[in-house]
Amino acid sequence: MSSHVAYSGARTLVVETADAVPPPPGQVRIAVAYTGICGTDLHIFHGDMDGRVRPPGVLGHEMSGRIAEIGSGVEGWQVGDPVTVMPLRWCGECPACRAGHTSICHRLVFLGIDAPGSMQTSWTVPADTLVRLPADLPLDHAALVEPTAVAVHDVRRAELRPGERALVVGGGPIGLLIAVFARRSGAEVLLAEPDRYRRSIGEGLGLTALDPRDDGFTATVDEWTDGAGAAVAFEVSGAAAGVSTAVAALATRGRLVQVAIHPAPREVDLHRFFWRELTLLGARLYDREDFTAAVDLLTEGVIPAATLISRVEPFGRATEAFVALESGANVVKVLIDCQSGGAGEAR
Amino acid sequence: MSSHVAYSGARTLVVETADAVPPPPGQVRIAVAYTGICGTDLHIFHGDMDGRVRPPGVLGHEMSGRIAEIGSGVEGWQVGDPVTVMPLRWCGECPACRAGHTSICHRLVFLGIDAPGSMQTSWTVPADTLVRLPADLPLDHAALVEPTAVAVHDVRRAELRPGERALVVGGGPIGLLIAVFARRSGAEVLLAEPDRYRRSIGEGLGLTALDPRDDGFTATVDEWTDGAGAAVAFEVSGAAAGVSTAVAALATRGRLVQVAIHPAPREVDLHRFFWRELTLLGARLYDREDFTAAVDLLTEGVIPAATLISRVEPFGRATEAFVALESGANVVKVLIDCQSGGAGEAR
Repeated sequence: MSSHVAYSGARTLVVETADAVPPPPGQVRIAVAYTGICGTDLHIFHGDMDGRVRPPGVLGHEMSGRIAEIGSGVEGWQVGDPVTVMPLRWCGECPACRAGHTSICHRLVFLGIDAPGSMQTSWTVPADTLVRLPADLPLDHAALVEPTAVAVHDVRRAELRPGERALVVGGGPIGLLIAVFARRSGAEVLLAEPDRYRRSIGEGLGLTALDPRDDGFTATVDEWTDGAGAAVAFEVSGAAAGVSTAVAALATRGRLVQVAIHPAPREVDLHRFFWRELTLLGARLYDREDFTAAVDLLTEGVIPAATLISRVEPFGRATEAFVALESGANVVKVLIDCQSGGAGEAR
Repeated sequence: MSSHVAYSGARTLVVETADAVPPPPGQVRIAVAYTGICGTDLHIFHGDMDGRVRPPGVLGHEMSGRIAEIGSGVEGWQVGDPVTVMPLRWCGECPACRAGHTSICHRLVFLGIDAPGSMQTSWTVPADTLVRLPADLPLDHAALVEPTAVAVHDVRRAELRPGERALVVGGGPIGLLIAVFARRSGAEVLLAEPDRYRRSIGEGLGLTALDPRDDGFTATVDEWTDGAGAAVAFEVSGAAAGVSTAVAALATRGRLVQVAIHPAPREVDLHRFFWRELTLLGARLYDREDFTAAVDLLTEGVIPAATLISRVEPFGRATEAFVALESGANVVKVLIDCQSGGAGEAR
């Protein structure tokens, strides 16, 4: 038997069971260890993505586990191998794919949104989505590979150079991961985050964290950059004010990487883009090289996984886990322990 | 004696005379032939830039002329040499200058806005602003060097590659120059312009010109790009709708060059930037290499100067020339003939 947490409508998660089905040819069945809850999962939980997620839909795309069963035609993998999954399926035929940008395929299928995800005890996926994990990477830490790959992609998109000053606007999980990886890449990093708890997490990681609403914020950025402004800003807040903070902080020819999802159009100071010849770069997902880099960063301990994982909850407490994350109170990353299984309604 | 057209307050231009002063060391006095009127000059005329232009201010930064007198210490120039001027003075010390981006100097002085411009019979400028003109380039055509340099810079900022499809949103002088230079650079170009007259000018230059308000516009872009969207869009309209048109038309990883000045913040579909990993590039002025490229393009006849110059007016009709340009009716580029001089109020 396999259990899963399914989204069955706004603010309703249910634990269901089903027979574990043998993987079809070219696929493998993973015994899932952990699945992280992401901001997108929260949007789904709120009922904001019912156009994409057909209830009952199994959520989850930040995960780790071990191969439990291998379909015919799959080579190079053994039962028991620790793995994570790059949860993208692209068409290979659309203009984006033909240009080599498979992660922004026009018909991209995102596992955990457009197809069943990993919030289940058994998850069957195409073998070519597998990413190998080292034996010494704890599986709870490995659930951070996917968001770390996002951060790696974002920093690469910025073409961040050592010694550059980078402002990270928004200190949620992705913002913190970007800050850590930007610092690892040689940049000087400043974190702008209104929430005191999130700032404290950043400070615990050795980052300078400021409240962008403080009167002295602009002067501090000015002083920090010798009056030049930041070479790079990452907009990871999703808030209108975050966009303004990032644009205002940039140096001439500065690059703004737009990471967060803004569901509504935002007012942007295009005159500033003209005046300072700024660049705005949209960043969405990742490529395989970002994923493997993320595995390395976690394995080497560059990513402070233990600090970022605030809570681990069993299946049966999935709803509480989502509610804790949406409150944002004293929580960074929440994982669901998919080894626990369970039955009945997720309370 | 020297005459000039001075901005003396909103919608008021006066012709004044003054003694022609010998150029100080390091400077030259130019006998100005022609000065073009630019969109920025119109903003000044409307009184919208009184913070920068102190009345009475001599406008004009698109010009041609001949050297009339040479200050001490200036080498390499002869009286009679045909020249234009790159109207920028930078500080050399600010962060932008130190990074090599002198045209976006934090303390940039733009001749014709922040300092007296070329709408005069005699204009004295630092010798290092001079740009040599070939003897066979007509001086009226040469007044288009500056706006052509803007277009060259914009196309370079896009890193436009041969065979790419480029949408130019806005068919004013800069939009037309961008379209012509983008085509010259090997791109396939489509012009989006609501005004029928401007479209007709574009069509006369062999461009495909469409009204972006037409129902079929999106489908046409789609068909033109085989469903991919345009690789590059130039936003040259300055209108909120122009931004939307450009963003919606772009392919995955498409580049939007923001050329026009948007005095007010604009609503931008940042979700589309995220979803398609688009890039927005602010573009402001030009470097010397853009200027010399522009001279070559005009000399080679690539830029259809005769088509773009709609009217040439004497000093005494400067006000009429500004009014004709602001109406936008049946006019592309208007030049002031500065050889004519004149006295009294510009009617």
